[in-house]
Amino acid sequence: MSTHAAMEAVVHGYIRALNDADLDAIVALFADDAVVEDPVGSEPQCGIAAIRVFYARAMALKLAVELEGPVRVVHHEAAFAFRVAFVLNDQRTTIRPIDVFRFDEAGRIVQMRAFFGPGNFEIG
Amino acid sequence: MSTHAAMEAVVHGYIRALNDADLDAIVALFADDAVVEDPVGSEPQCGIAAIRVFYARAMALKLAVELEGPVRVVHHEAAFAFRVAFVLNDQRTTIRPIDVFRFDEAGRIVQMRAFFGPGNFEIG
Repeated sequence: MSTHAAMEAVVHGYIRALNDADLDAIVALFADDAVVEDPVGSEPQCGIAAIRVFYARAMALKLAVELEGPVRVVHHEAAFAFRVAFVLNDQRTTIRPIDVFRFDEAGRIVQMRAFFGPGNFEIG
Repeated sequence: MSTHAAMEAVVHGYIRALNDADLDAIVALFADDAVVEDPVGSEPQCGIAAIRVFYARAMALKLAVELEGPVRVVHHEAAFAFRVAFVLNDQRTTIRPIDVFRFDEAGRIVQMRAFFGPGNFEIG
């Protein structure tokens, strides 16, 4: 099983890849059969091809991403709070999600769930 | 279904009940068949009787609890980061978990999962 340090490194790699708009780097963090539910309650993106399309769309917004507080790594999962800033329709927008990753034996993300709701958007 | 405001109020009630060491108040937030996994990866506490024992034990430590950042409420779930301080073996100890609650139709917690690992303890 993946170590705590390795799981935490995946989270930091995820933040870095979002800031760099590095689609290959972010997709490489996921298992082939991974499922992304972003936000929670939306249609899940199942499998690496759908996940690539999902992040390509997200990265088109030129995201500025920053961790808030420590990464919580426990058992085979990690949770972390962060801040995502981007410009949408000429308006500076910030979202403050909490993401939860579940990892496989090889340390790749098999499940990602993003928690943010209408109350977690800041405009302007 | 419970509204976002109602689910967020449950989180604030949870924090308040922990600070007040109010066992009845905290148990009242959970459904009869709720499951508490605290921390993630530990043996789940299943049902309200086991949950009462679990929180009675936690409250014996006189916890000081504080939210960190906004509550993320989405669909039927909420996630939030917080800080828990207590004295253990004469040492000031702080844990910084992220909790995830899932709610039933009546707005009670049916699942609670607490994310914190060895890296989220601060001693002294």
